[in-house]
Amino acid sequence: MAGSTFGKIIQLSTFGESHGVAIGGVLQGIPAGLELDTEKVQDLLDKRTPGQSRITTQRKESDTVQWLSGIFEGKTTGTPIGFVIHNQDQRSKDYSHIKDQFRPSHADFTYHAKYGHRDYRGGGRSSARETACRVVAGAVCMQVLEQKGIEVIAYVQRVQNTSIPDDAAFAPQNRYDNDVRCPHVETAAKMFSLIDSIRKEGDTVGGEIVCLINGVPAGLGEPVFHKLHADLGSAMLGINAVKSFEIGSGKDGTYLKGSQHNDLFTQEEGSTVTATNKSGGIQGGISNGQQITMSIGFKPVATIMKDQDSVNKDGEKVTVKGKGRHDPCVLPRAVPIVESMAALVIADHLMLSQSNRMDQL
Amino acid sequence: MAGSTFGKIIQLSTFGESHGVAIGGVLQGIPAGLELDTEKVQDLLDKRTPGQSRITTQRKESDTVQWLSGIFEGKTTGTPIGFVIHNQDQRSKDYSHIKDQFRPSHADFTYHAKYGHRDYRGGGRSSARETACRVVAGAVCMQVLEQKGIEVIAYVQRVQNTSIPDDAAFAPQNRYDNDVRCPHVETAAKMFSLIDSIRKEGDTVGGEIVCLINGVPAGLGEPVFHKLHADLGSAMLGINAVKSFEIGSGKDGTYLKGSQHNDLFTQEEGSTVTATNKSGGIQGGISNGQQITMSIGFKPVATIMKDQDSVNKDGEKVTVKGKGRHDPCVLPRAVPIVESMAALVIADHLMLSQSNRMDQL
Amino acid sequence: MAGSTFGKIIQLSTFGESHGVAIGGVLQGIPAGLELDTEKVQDLLDKRTPGQSRITTQRKESDTVQWLSGIFEGKTTGTPIGFVIHNQDQRSKDYSHIKDQFRPSHADFTYHAKYGHRDYRGGGRSSARETACRVVAGAVCMQVLEQKGIEVIAYVQRVQNTSIPDDAAFAPQNRYDNDVRCPHVETAAKMFSLIDSIRKEGDTVGGEIVCLINGVPAGLGEPVFHKLHADLGSAMLGINAVKSFEIGSGKDGTYLKGSQHNDLFTQEEGSTVTATNKSGGIQGGISNGQQITMSIGFKPVATIMKDQDSVNKDGEKVTVKGKGRHDPCVLPRAVPIVESMAALVIADHLMLSQSNRMDQL
Amino acid sequence: MAGSTFGKIIQLSTFGESHGVAIGGVLQGIPAGLELDTEKVQDLLDKRTPGQSRITTQRKESDTVQWLSGIFEGKTTGTPIGFVIHNQDQRSKDYSHIKDQFRPSHADFTYHAKYGHRDYRGGGRSSARETACRVVAGAVCMQVLEQKGIEVIAYVQRVQNTSIPDDAAFAPQNRYDNDVRCPHVETAAKMFSLIDSIRKEGDTVGGEIVCLINGVPAGLGEPVFHKLHADLGSAMLGINAVKSFEIGSGKDGTYLKGSQHNDLFTQEEGSTVTATNKSGGIQGGISNGQQITMSIGFKPVATIMKDQDSVNKDGEKVTVKGKGRHDPCVLPRAVPIVESMAALVIADHLMLSQSNRMDQL
Repeated sequence: MAGSTFGKIIQLSTFGESHGVAIGGVLQGIPAGLELDTEKVQDLLDKRTPGQSRITTQRKESDTVQWLSGIFEGKTTGTPIGFVIHNQDQRSKDYSHIKDQFRPSHADFTYHAKYGHRDYRGGGRSSARETACRVVAGAVCMQVLEQKGIEVIAYVQRVQNTSIPDDAAFAPQNRYDNDVRCPHVETAAKMFSLIDSIRKEGDTVGGEIVCLINGVPAGLGEPVFHKLHADLGSAMLGINAVKSFEIGSGKDGTYLKGSQHNDLFTQEEGSTVTATNKSGGIQGGISNGQQITMSIGFKPVATIMKDQDSVNKDGEKVTVKGKGRHDPCVLPRAVPIVESMAALVIADHLMLSQSNRMDQL
Repeated sequence: MAGSTFGKIIQLSTFGESHGVAIGGVLQGIPAGLELDTEKVQDLLDKRTPGQSRITTQRKESDTVQWLSGIFEGKTTGTPIGFVIHNQDQRSKDYSHIKDQFRPSHADFTYHAKYGHRDYRGGGRSSARETACRVVAGAVCMQVLEQKGIEVIAYVQRVQNTSIPDDAAFAPQNRYDNDVRCPHVETAAKMFSLIDSIRKEGDTVGGEIVCLINGVPAGLGEPVFHKLHADLGSAMLGINAVKSFEIGSGKDGTYLKGSQHNDLFTQEEGSTVTATNKSGGIQGGISNGQQITMSIGFKPVATIMKDQDSVNKDGEKVTVKGKGRHDPCVLPRAVPIVESMAALVIADHLMLSQSNRMDQL
Repeated sequence: MAGSTFGKIIQLSTFGESHGVAIGGVLQGIPAGLELDTEKVQDLLDKRTPGQSRITTQRKESDTVQWLSGIFEGKTTGTPIGFVIHNQDQRSKDYSHIKDQFRPSHADFTYHAKYGHRDYRGGGRSSARETACRVVAGAVCMQVLEQKGIEVIAYVQRVQNTSIPDDAAFAPQNRYDNDVRCPHVETAAKMFSLIDSIRKEGDTVGGEIVCLINGVPAGLGEPVFHKLHADLGSAMLGINAVKSFEIGSGKDGTYLKGSQHNDLFTQEEGSTVTATNKSGGIQGGISNGQQITMSIGFKPVATIMKDQDSVNKDGEKVTVKGKGRHDPCVLPRAVPIVESMAALVIADHLMLSQSNRMDQL
Repeated sequence: MAGSTFGKIIQLSTFGESHGVAIGGVLQGIPAGLELDTEKVQDLLDKRTPGQSRITTQRKESDTVQWLSGIFEGKTTGTPIGFVIHNQDQRSKDYSHIKDQFRPSHADFTYHAKYGHRDYRGGGRSSARETACRVVAGAVCMQVLEQKGIEVIAYVQRVQNTSIPDDAAFAPQNRYDNDVRCPHVETAAKMFSLIDSIRKEGDTVGGEIVCLINGVPAGLGEPVFHKLHADLGSAMLGINAVKSFEIGSGKDGTYLKGSQHNDLFTQEEGSTVTATNKSGGIQGGISNGQQITMSIGFKPVATIMKDQDSVNKDGEKVTVKGKGRHDPCVLPRAVPIVESMAALVIADHLMLSQSNRMDQL
């Protein structure tokens, strides 16, 4: 499968550079007959849009999705959904200084090494701008999932050292009520202050996003290589700046004994459920009907407003200037991206599961 | 792509249940003309074999790989390499008690939910026995990589709370010198004692494996969805019991500021290198020529020698007995599996990279 | 997708050389819960087996399929079905004369050019022996299709110039009643004589197989590249010696006017049907509920019992001797292969169609 | 692989309905560093454009390709090439009469059966308008191939009963010198008259296109399922109205004996070549270095200017009126489509072949 294509039945192919004409995608495999609420898609896309508050990049783009195909009289037709988002507020000259220089921990060097020729403006294809296309596709998938009672919720759990306390009470679905996308209001305020002060330093911070998926029926996931959490992990690790992925109890769980970690089965309202959920809703790579839980770690953004030592194409030492418009912390804008990738994976596996059993054909 | 198929050009399809006739696989895309050292393959497979010491399961199987095709006069022909490993020491009756019961944190329930009909003996397809096929394929890929100066080394970094100290000096390549596969001798001894005492308790522990890949040229990895670390993550998360995946600085790196985390470029012997390696050898999803580093967390094995509450197929509460032959800690035997999956991913991306540039066709 | 892998959800990967240890395959995506009649599979495989009459090759192999996984207590488990067929009657020395020579219209030269190193014995991977694996997989698919009222029937329509007359009355399902697999008894007798006399000449002949598929529901096929007949064509053209593929009216239909060729819709017993079937059951790449009809042309087998001019690896002119055991006409044995490939395609598209519509999820 | 995605390394995904906002595609896998002549692409697209002469549909669209990504400073960057062609001259009301009716031998009924909801305007996704995207992608591939000395030439060989005579001398590369795209001038004139008279009748005709590929090196094609001609066949059969595909000697070859059909090898200027080319440049599914030759049969266009019996959605008998703007013969405009699909296949296999041998990595 090509590098910019994701999924098996529900399959997304994206294109586009940060400062090119447009970004966009082709989304295949969405079943026919879905009444698509395009405003809801645009609404999620707006949540990823830069320029929303002083803690996100000031690049202002309306990021309006234009639908080109696959929808007729408000409903999906089962054929590919083509869409584009035109690039607008490009200040390409902001990037002329890095035409021949390699910004530290950016993809400038590796794209140069791989392809020999690259669109350096705004990071080109390596820019997180490309993730807008994933949000469009993910938002469509969410509407498929909604019909089956499945809901995806991600939120910012931690920014650098500032975390939602373990004992905090909060409603995850309120994540979008503040600019930080942290549903615990007190923590959100602390995070905002932290990010704002880091911004003033010209530096950046990372952190952690938690993603929950409710309502997934038991039986999704394809052993042995395409375990549900392997596909979710692949999806998340494909998002810019992600450094770690944990399913269920995650890394913490690896410190426990088996007798502490096992999720005992019991019965509740006639259904087999687990008393605890260390498994994070997935056992043996297949969903067990419990809430799917995962955690995704993001590194601090590489672009800082400070001078840094580097080299150029000719191997000469240079100083890379810190300038341009950038996010001091990528997490608030990453929340809809995480949700979108999760929705793509779950919707795809929902389709795959339709042919699991002879008696269900 | 089907659930038991992995990779794009170098593609592995596996089959087999723990207590069926045989497990095996088809490995495609290995270039023609590789002089295959089948003893080295068997040697790696032996490192995964159960029954090697008192800290691994006592199930004894010779696990002999039988080559069926794709090799002629000692060299690969470019056609599919078919292989089988016959199952031998099956004590299926050990499992009759779980025919209708769901073992906690095992895949019994989810396979039942997904397929309605399952081979319950020894976990069937969900058994880690299947990973032997990955080791065969991975060991072949290692020989491809070796020709290009690439080497994969994994080792046990931590068992429960016992870790190689940060300041310890050790040679990773010596990992196979002891039963724990921890190359730091003092830590290995502690880990052995820990696992042995856990075994006596009838309990299990997890931990962490570090994987290093040396000699990877800059330029491997396919933006945007098939970033090199996204494919590595998918590979590792597809291994039984894996709960977390970290690339480079991993989760720890998410606590740093951008100015602390960035890897500055510099020149060394005429090559562009990085002064530090927080990126773990991958930037923007593409290898940068530095050492690739990752860390994989394994949960404690679900099978414990203790009684546990559960339910059966009919939703009735039952007690699952703790019996059979099992590993108190999966990590020592997982080392060659991690190495094998890493080798599959790197070899596949090496093939994909052959057509990146017009001037290299 | 790798070269020896076929299909999307129902996916077959095969391996094996004509004179290697074994041939075999991995069949994925067969739904769980199918009661598999393995005798019926072996029965179809026997129909492909050489040595059945004096008009097929005298190589005698029992071609016994050995099932390795994916079936438990007589029913499929939804996991990969692994199988092997061990090679038995190999007379590899028969082939030593072509170790360095290129047999005309065989794959010796092209495999040499592509891979540099090849298993020349019996044609190695290029031998039609590999198609036995397709028959095993196809026979399993037929049992899936049977549950849905779908039946695949192929038969020999023409050998060289000897054809079933246009006005002949015959029952296609009787195809296996004679050695030629032509259900029109009088024509079968003529074909038998023709093939036998060609055999005595030391020459070979080709011809045409017709394939019919009954009971396919309307709605199978994936626009635009994976039209049902495009996938069927790909399947058939992948069979050794196939030179032409026609769907419905085929090449003859290209001589008609639109007003002659169009299939008018009408109603029959409450269903929309077509008055004629020039479309061959597929319109716009999607099945329309009518009988699927296609025709596949096979060239004369390349191996003849005559001396032929050729060159060797070093570019020197040589005479290739005509010897060994071969089919004077490949068509009788190709009938089950055609049926099997058709079954693989239809079963795969049946699975794909399960997620076409929201209201059917 | 999704239905609107084609190819393995060079992979095209298309979208768009005939009367929607736009059609377009994402082309992946084109190596970096290709100097793309976009005018040549537009030029080929213009050759497919309707409204070029009185023997093609009078729907007039400029069909201007707009490039959205993947090209920087005139050269490909190795990242996905996104492109759109906006729909312009849509007269959707021409189609309101078929909203609930099924046009004979069109895809109206099958799309309805498959999806339940369809864009009926102009045939929606089933319209041949979609093939414009294939021409864009194919024209890019041709420029890749040109760098390696490979050239694709298709031409109209036959319209209904009017064929280029067997003994005619002509230069295939002159195919675009006339409106019929038949390089034999005398035959082209006859074909033009034939099509024009059929047009006046309100009827349609089909015929045959021959495609030649020069300069393909020996070694392209992936046994056993993705033989080069199986992939070419799949590509051609995916084009609207194609009913037959023949490689090399094709169906005629199936009437010959082996001794007549075999291509003897000989030496020419130090290379191994064949004395004849019945194989059509492909043996055992792999190119042998000779000219690749194939023939593709097109049925008469289903839309005729005559009333036809049919049924509607409710199963009631109706008369479908013959109106709208349509091609009396699809072949002239299909020539660039055939060439484009051939270029996609050959370029893809060229990329795949880069990793065939260890000594070429």
